[in-house]
Amino acid sequence: MAVYTDITEDELRQFLSQYDVGELTSYKGIAEGVENSNFLLHTTKDPLILTLYEKRVEKSDLPFFLGLMQHLADKGLSCPLPLPRKDGELLGELSGRPAALISFLEGMWLRKPEAKHCWEVGKALAAMHVAGEGFDIKRPNALSLEGWKVLWEKSEGRADEVESGLKDEIDPEIAFLAAHWPKDLPSGVIHADLFQDNVFFLGDELSGLIDFYFACNDLLAYDVSICLNAWCFEKDGSYNVTKGKALLAGYQSVRPMSEAELEAMPILARGSALRFFLTRLYDWLTTPAGALVVKKDPLEYLRKLRFHRSIGHVAEYGLVEE
Amino acid sequence: MAVYTDITEDELRQFLSQYDVGELTSYKGIAEGVENSNFLLHTTKDPLILTLYEKRVEKSDLPFFLGLMQHLADKGLSCPLPLPRKDGELLGELSGRPAALISFLEGMWLRKPEAKHCWEVGKALAAMHVAGEGFDIKRPNALSLEGWKVLWEKSEGRADEVESGLKDEIDPEIAFLAAHWPKDLPSGVIHADLFQDNVFFLGDELSGLIDFYFACNDLLAYDVSICLNAWCFEKDGSYNVTKGKALLAGYQSVRPMSEAELEAMPILARGSALRFFLTRLYDWLTTPAGALVVKKDPLEYLRKLRFHRSIGHVAEYGLVEE
Repeated sequence: MAVYTDITEDELRQFLSQYDVGELTSYKGIAEGVENSNFLLHTTKDPLILTLYEKRVEKSDLPFFLGLMQHLADKGLSCPLPLPRKDGELLGELSGRPAALISFLEGMWLRKPEAKHCWEVGKALAAMHVAGEGFDIKRPNALSLEGWKVLWEKSEGRADEVESGLKDEIDPEIAFLAAHWPKDLPSGVIHADLFQDNVFFLGDELSGLIDFYFACNDLLAYDVSICLNAWCFEKDGSYNVTKGKALLAGYQSVRPMSEAELEAMPILARGSALRFFLTRLYDWLTTPAGALVVKKDPLEYLRKLRFHRSIGHVAEYGLVEE
Repeated sequence: MAVYTDITEDELRQFLSQYDVGELTSYKGIAEGVENSNFLLHTTKDPLILTLYEKRVEKSDLPFFLGLMQHLADKGLSCPLPLPRKDGELLGELSGRPAALISFLEGMWLRKPEAKHCWEVGKALAAMHVAGEGFDIKRPNALSLEGWKVLWEKSEGRADEVESGLKDEIDPEIAFLAAHWPKDLPSGVIHADLFQDNVFFLGDELSGLIDFYFACNDLLAYDVSICLNAWCFEKDGSYNVTKGKALLAGYQSVRPMSEAELEAMPILARGSALRFFLTRLYDWLTTPAGALVVKKDPLEYLRKLRFHRSIGHVAEYGLVEE
């Protein structure tokens, strides 16, 4: 839940006068997004989302994020569309912060997704990968191998507070991934954070993807491995092969993966499990006790990492050979 | 900002099936209200507010709150209207909590109200007092003299942590109020918390009052004194007599106060300043450090209390004799 910056009606009205939107009739801070402040606006025309970018987002990355949403929407992907101001700019300023006005996407995120939803997610992820082709701004993935090393250096001294033996487990894991990380797989624009709360459904139909603020250029199959981690494990930590199968089949129905991509899936999934383990570990160690932010358990991702380490062949994820 | 309870789409859909509303297309937790969890729902018909009552609200009080909103709306006051279920009940259950579906009121609360807005607030408060007549459920004010004593007993031991000398100031203040509190003034249903964020405007026009969860039966003029405290002081602690005059004149344009009510205004304003001082003091002393809840400064209300103690005659609030 996040509203870091309150805004006055006057400054909002002035901000909106730069856009061609209806009259403002209501605005409410909403409990979505962790990095930014988000408001749901009602106007005499369509509802809108107003996002104020807080300091955890690099201002220099905003043209990538906003341009990407516009590019993807142009290609027919259902995602929030930044509205241009009357002068054509996508980015404005409000209350001293970079701010954008974005179309409101109807739909709800699923608290309890089933295999059929995983199929839709795989399909939408592949559609996003295809739609991302031709987008010409680049943004390297700050949370890949080099970023993991930096995060681990900041946390390793206290990691054993979370589980004893962590240091002895993670040091060689990072070394292994650095030595074996695939290099020649197809790359492009990835979402990099396609968790449940970033996929909207209306009934059983996927209505759109949101939150592109971790998007970057990286291996496409790595994005698939993030979704395997995010969508295909049960609350008890077990891997649900029916969901994995559905997610991979949905993906391949739009963009078939190469042999090399499929073979790399276990190591990619180890990497993506490590990535979420490390950011959660860092947040766990640095968020003050008593803060109302819900701390996410890093050990959930340690268990997923161990599962992927045990995988001998991609078929174990539920892949159906074509 | 408050969303204490998350809800799944399935349980929400089941809950909504008990009502005659459109198809759900979106729901977002909103950062409003301190005591309850609130969601803004979009449907294929009108937007709605869903409120889940958390444990700080007494379930036995809910028929009073919901019945009052319905009574006031029936009398033509612009306020949120609880929607009855198909079986006629105003109160349901969701995620193990009492829950109600309430009409969405367009409008925005003013971060920087001017005197003309204070006039509107006074007028709307009087209209609410008049509309409240004939509402037959009663709820005593838990935050009047007896409640203040209880709050003070819980805080006095540590009060000097907040400002030294507090104990020597508040003990005699409570004794004075207990000895001189007026008893024979007109009473009825009061809002008891009509702060800026509970009054919506569209442009300069007041579009409605919200948040009746402190409403109760008490002296009507006491409610006016709460508004004087909430609306007529500047950020630097100074009393703005132009705003005070506007608020009192707006009120009297609908419901003229008696001589006795006007003469009691200084002591009523001392009482209402003490009431907010005491709840803020208690929260200040008991909210854990680092919690993301914004702690409101109790000393703001101590300063207001001292101001009212200095008032010799109601004319000093800006009252224009009729």
